[in-house]
Amino acid sequence: MTTAPVRITAAEGPGQPERTPELEELYRGFESELLVPLWTEIGDLMPHEPNSRAQAHAWRWRNLLPLAERAGRLVPVGRGGERRAIALANPGLGGAPFATPTLWAAIQYLGPREDAPVHRHTQHAFRFVVEGEGVWTVVDGDPVAMRRGDFLLTPGWHFHGHHNRSDAPMAWLDGLDIPLSHYTGSTFFEFGPDEVGDRTAPARSRSEQLWSHPGLTPVSAAGTPRPSSPIAAYRWEHTDRALDDQLALERDGFAGVLEPGHAAVRFTNPTTGGDVMPTIRAEFHRLRAGTVTATRREVGSSVYQVFDGAGTVRVGEREWTVAHGDLFAVPSWQPLTVAAAGGEGLDLFRFSDTPVFDRLHQSRVHIEDTPVEDIPSEGAAR
Amino acid sequence: MTTAPVRITAAEGPGQPERTPELEELYRGFESELLVPLWTEIGDLMPHEPNSRAQAHAWRWRNLLPLAERAGRLVPVGRGGERRAIALANPGLGGAPFATPTLWAAIQYLGPREDAPVHRHTQHAFRFVVEGEGVWTVVDGDPVAMRRGDFLLTPGWHFHGHHNRSDAPMAWLDGLDIPLSHYTGSTFFEFGPDEVGDRTAPARSRSEQLWSHPGLTPVSAAGTPRPSSPIAAYRWEHTDRALDDQLALERDGFAGVLEPGHAAVRFTNPTTGGDVMPTIRAEFHRLRAGTVTATRREVGSSVYQVFDGAGTVRVGEREWTVAHGDLFAVPSWQPLTVAAAGGEGLDLFRFSDTPVFDRLHQSRVHIEDTPVEDIPSEGAAR
Amino acid sequence: MTTAPVRITAAEGPGQPERTPELEELYRGFESELLVPLWTEIGDLMPHEPNSRAQAHAWRWRNLLPLAERAGRLVPVGRGGERRAIALANPGLGGAPFATPTLWAAIQYLGPREDAPVHRHTQHAFRFVVEGEGVWTVVDGDPVAMRRGDFLLTPGWHFHGHHNRSDAPMAWLDGLDIPLSHYTGSTFFEFGPDEVGDRTAPARSRSEQLWSHPGLTPVSAAGTPRPSSPIAAYRWEHTDRALDDQLALERDGFAGVLEPGHAAVRFTNPTTGGDVMPTIRAEFHRLRAGTVTATRREVGSSVYQVFDGAGTVRVGEREWTVAHGDLFAVPSWQPLTVAAAGGEGLDLFRFSDTPVFDRLHQSRVHIEDTPVEDIPSEGAAR
Amino acid sequence: MTTAPVRITAAEGPGQPERTPELEELYRGFESELLVPLWTEIGDLMPHEPNSRAQAHAWRWRNLLPLAERAGRLVPVGRGGERRAIALANPGLGGAPFATPTLWAAIQYLGPREDAPVHRHTQHAFRFVVEGEGVWTVVDGDPVAMRRGDFLLTPGWHFHGHHNRSDAPMAWLDGLDIPLSHYTGSTFFEFGPDEVGDRTAPARSRSEQLWSHPGLTPVSAAGTPRPSSPIAAYRWEHTDRALDDQLALERDGFAGVLEPGHAAVRFTNPTTGGDVMPTIRAEFHRLRAGTVTATRREVGSSVYQVFDGAGTVRVGEREWTVAHGDLFAVPSWQPLTVAAAGGEGLDLFRFSDTPVFDRLHQSRVHIEDTPVEDIPSEGAAR
Repeated sequence: MTTAPVRITAAEGPGQPERTPELEELYRGFESELLVPLWTEIGDLMPHEPNSRAQAHAWRWRNLLPLAERAGRLVPVGRGGERRAIALANPGLGGAPFATPTLWAAIQYLGPREDAPVHRHTQHAFRFVVEGEGVWTVVDGDPVAMRRGDFLLTPGWHFHGHHNRSDAPMAWLDGLDIPLSHYTGSTFFEFGPDEVGDRTAPARSRSEQLWSHPGLTPVSAAGTPRPSSPIAAYRWEHTDRALDDQLALERDGFAGVLEPGHAAVRFTNPTTGGDVMPTIRAEFHRLRAGTVTATRREVGSSVYQVFDGAGTVRVGEREWTVAHGDLFAVPSWQPLTVAAAGGEGLDLFRFSDTPVFDRLHQSRVHIEDTPVEDIPSEGAAR
Repeated sequence: MTTAPVRITAAEGPGQPERTPELEELYRGFESELLVPLWTEIGDLMPHEPNSRAQAHAWRWRNLLPLAERAGRLVPVGRGGERRAIALANPGLGGAPFATPTLWAAIQYLGPREDAPVHRHTQHAFRFVVEGEGVWTVVDGDPVAMRRGDFLLTPGWHFHGHHNRSDAPMAWLDGLDIPLSHYTGSTFFEFGPDEVGDRTAPARSRSEQLWSHPGLTPVSAAGTPRPSSPIAAYRWEHTDRALDDQLALERDGFAGVLEPGHAAVRFTNPTTGGDVMPTIRAEFHRLRAGTVTATRREVGSSVYQVFDGAGTVRVGEREWTVAHGDLFAVPSWQPLTVAAAGGEGLDLFRFSDTPVFDRLHQSRVHIEDTPVEDIPSEGAAR
Repeated sequence: MTTAPVRITAAEGPGQPERTPELEELYRGFESELLVPLWTEIGDLMPHEPNSRAQAHAWRWRNLLPLAERAGRLVPVGRGGERRAIALANPGLGGAPFATPTLWAAIQYLGPREDAPVHRHTQHAFRFVVEGEGVWTVVDGDPVAMRRGDFLLTPGWHFHGHHNRSDAPMAWLDGLDIPLSHYTGSTFFEFGPDEVGDRTAPARSRSEQLWSHPGLTPVSAAGTPRPSSPIAAYRWEHTDRALDDQLALERDGFAGVLEPGHAAVRFTNPTTGGDVMPTIRAEFHRLRAGTVTATRREVGSSVYQVFDGAGTVRVGEREWTVAHGDLFAVPSWQPLTVAAAGGEGLDLFRFSDTPVFDRLHQSRVHIEDTPVEDIPSEGAAR
Repeated sequence: MTTAPVRITAAEGPGQPERTPELEELYRGFESELLVPLWTEIGDLMPHEPNSRAQAHAWRWRNLLPLAERAGRLVPVGRGGERRAIALANPGLGGAPFATPTLWAAIQYLGPREDAPVHRHTQHAFRFVVEGEGVWTVVDGDPVAMRRGDFLLTPGWHFHGHHNRSDAPMAWLDGLDIPLSHYTGSTFFEFGPDEVGDRTAPARSRSEQLWSHPGLTPVSAAGTPRPSSPIAAYRWEHTDRALDDQLALERDGFAGVLEPGHAAVRFTNPTTGGDVMPTIRAEFHRLRAGTVTATRREVGSSVYQVFDGAGTVRVGEREWTVAHGDLFAVPSWQPLTVAAAGGEGLDLFRFSDTPVFDRLHQSRVHIEDTPVEDIPSEGAAR
């Protein structure tokens, strides 16, 4: 346990005291008592609008995947290291393996016939499969097939391990709330068996047999909202069809899309209608060819992965052309605009920390050329 | 905007890959792509139980107050610096003015006839008055007297300024959620007038006239839960009486106290029955002379201030004898035991970040010699 | 168990079939199969707006009290009859002892030194004391003094008995949801001891010691919303002061009153901020001398009792001048206007079934010369 | 508006006053003041457990359908009569067209090429199709195909009309909360156009395009719970598959079914996870051949319709063998046991008023040979 010294530097500008020997002596007194004045720090602590340390940044699939493959050759998967996961490190966050101050995003890589050992933790986790198949993740004993386009859940404190039943390696995106729980000090972790128990390979998990029927709830489990969704796998066939349906409605002149040419679905918890997990929102967005979204700022941070198609993304001053597998981070309150390539459309997976701010009444959204939304913390409690 | 380089050091121990030139080359490749592997960081990121960077620490009123008085002579209060507030800096948090990773605690000092200018921010704030009187805080135009023992609210995005109407200085405790909103990047701030508008000095605020009647709600405002309490001042006379009543019930053999000899009340939002603000819990605890509390660990951090009496506090390995005005921070999951002095009892004000973890289903409590509570995130949604 | 025959009479008017022998034969066929067509009944079943069978009616205290006193001489209180309660029977409800289709209102009378035996039932009950004192109601063993102006709760399934410790009789208003639970078939009832256990006579109940402190919740009971309020007695001193405060705010030019000259408080559940019990709303209204309320219609029915002062009440076509102790029933959607006498003001106790409609998203309010509120069932879920 | 006289008859038994001339005079005094004593009525008003006036009764499809067909020839459908609906009249409810005190159940019959005019009402409605197809119900302009096994919603205050596009008649079950809203006086009704606007005949409604994807919510509509489900049609293919999946899980030794051999799904509101409408619960139950359910009592009433298979139903003293299309009513707290025929299984549609009691904290369930559940009104608020 190390103790960091306190260092106070007299600030300049309006409202700042004159620098005198007495002031310096006062500041030394503060330091010796582990005190820091507000007046020297207020610019950083109380900006007029969110000023995240995180930076907008893009990571390229064409660079990530080869590194993951090399890790597959050099780094074993087993107890202790637990997972062959390679995390995005936001350049603004001091080298920490955090995509944003609250979100973890990593490429996990499992070789042919490889196992990842069973453990559980209070952090909430999901997997999104940008390509490939052959791995089953076993969540509390329920084997869940992982296939291209699927969104898979491992809510907090559920035992889980993975095994690759195929002769090909598989890589996918892991998303967790590790940075938030690490910062706030709320993490619990337990080892499970070194091998997953049920090594069968069903096409559908038991959770889907019980829960993946639209608007239908098993009476044996009805009436008790759960903090996280009981659906272990949201299958691509459903996501793809829901997005097509929204665009079809738009073509026929009916409501449904988020904005012109922009269909979007949120993965939700069927026991509450809310987000899949208490700290993570997950959505899938589909832009028609040539669509340009409105420019949007939100309290809270997001990570996107391009699933299909191509386009251009602008975040504040940064702009990238993006293609299959590319990932990018959008810090809190930075303006985001996405444009789908003219020839083809753009399919984007997104996850964010929005539920945290919704639950704390801190969410705020601004869409360019529209008024700022009222701040929920000023509205009714949820 | 500075970009921090990523540095990866091969870790030792179970599950770690053999250190080879190829591995070093891989790690350099990670660094150049802003990637960090989980397996070298998992010990820090996924401990078996919360391992907060914050440290248990006590700050002494006898040392704080003279420094605040010297600041009163040397540091003006005005636009720019905004407040003469001196924050507790936890020794584990790198010199930042944070009492814990989520909580701000500061001594605010206002000289005779002095004003603090009007502003508003999304951070939630309260004041607790350990001694003195004479200042009115004006919240959205409502003048609120500050007196010894009072707990006063300034929920997020309410304009507020202070003015000292007396010829004596006054110092009090400010509590806010600045560290959490700073870390997550969710802060908005606006200046108001340089001077408070309504300079009258009523004994009761208008908010109390409307809301401080037990179990009674104005019909004109009923039926809409508010995220924060509409009560601007929780008066000492009510807090003191509620605590006495609990101890009287215990003497008569009835339930009510938290544990033997330990009365406690939570300041609550009358429109919901929940915590006063979405991110901050506030409570007042009274221990009979000689009472020793059970040893308790909680997810989330707290700051306590001794209001009256004396006693001994143990947090993990640290132990202090505490008296009037002393403050101490309790990091997440560190075991806390409080003992009231034999001769006299102990009155303690406490605030914590518990509502954040309750809302995210991450709360967990352990009381020594009892089973760990189920994790709410495993229970029903709230 | 009696079986009522079905009788169908051909209706006249638009959309009605021609009366032919074949139609009559069809109707006889319906009758023999216990069937009734919609088209002959729709006018009664689906009116364009609520058309309650209940009637507006006033009951006079000067007539009720002498009958209660005679009952005191002639009717014992004991097991079997349970209570000496005399219920208001709405003239529109077929002679049933129901003030409205959902609400029970009765005068309960207890002679000097008399006891009412202990029982419990799922119906929710309250008492309002228009005059007198000397009786303690003992709710789950907690003795609760009954005094002029007090509003006292006995939520469903709490054992309760009463005993009169004085040498004077006492009469008060009982309100319950008996008609609703009788109609829907949801009543459970159990006998307790013939005599109340704790015969002490404290000025404050234990529930008040724990719960009647503004904005303060015992930590030992915090965090669990309760369907009914834990406050057994809402004391007149608090109600009276809250009403005075609202009128004082109005005098000073600030918000708070329900409408000009009309102060109103709702008795609420401190664990939720909502109504005191799931099926009953209770309020106290104070009109300045000469105040005339807006004309208001609401889905759901109410019963009022005049506590103090005098005035005029208009409900639809009916109008009465009312004074101390008088009771009147307001059926669903009938327009209500109240005028306080010029010389003196008017203090009114009110209870209603509004929480039932709020919880079922059926509430609707119309204030004359204003637009109809949106129907909550069209708005967001609660 | 008729006024019913009050008639009081002296009761016999414990706690009843001696019948004397003075007592008779007192009772005449009560009558003249529209008062009724509790002590003569308490046996009826406060039974030890629910004692519904409704009776268990079964209606036979083989008798209902021919009457509906004859009505099809004799009774036009049009403005005024509105619908050719023939309601079940419970023999215990005085000839009123109520299946239970809270629930309306009717056979609606529409001839070839016939229209039912557009209207809306605050009562919540659904349709269940036991056989046939060819009708589209148009809900707020959205054409919804009605097919065998489908469960279709028309929540309160949505305009709706029907048109039969086929050359065959169609009959189906209508369920509404008419009796409850009629009793409580909370009904609003409005006419719409005489003809449905959109006469197209899509296989899927727009509501299904937006909402019938498992666990997926349109982002354009996310975040706002709705009091009723936005899904206009719950299709048989999904219901059938969900039930098969539960029985498959049971065969494989996993949890999911309600009890051995008994699969059941509840139709739910995807924006809340709760019941489809605030006053009506709807479920589908499938019993394996030979399965006998536990004997169950519930607060609240239900109506069942046999969809497929055959079996035996016992409600209290009554017992019937039931087959395709048969309907039966189960009054509050009467014990229900269902047995599927040995040769074939039994598919049952059920609807009930349970959400009303859940929302009022009055629900209670008893399963024979198990302890009574705690009463929710004693538990935590929902």
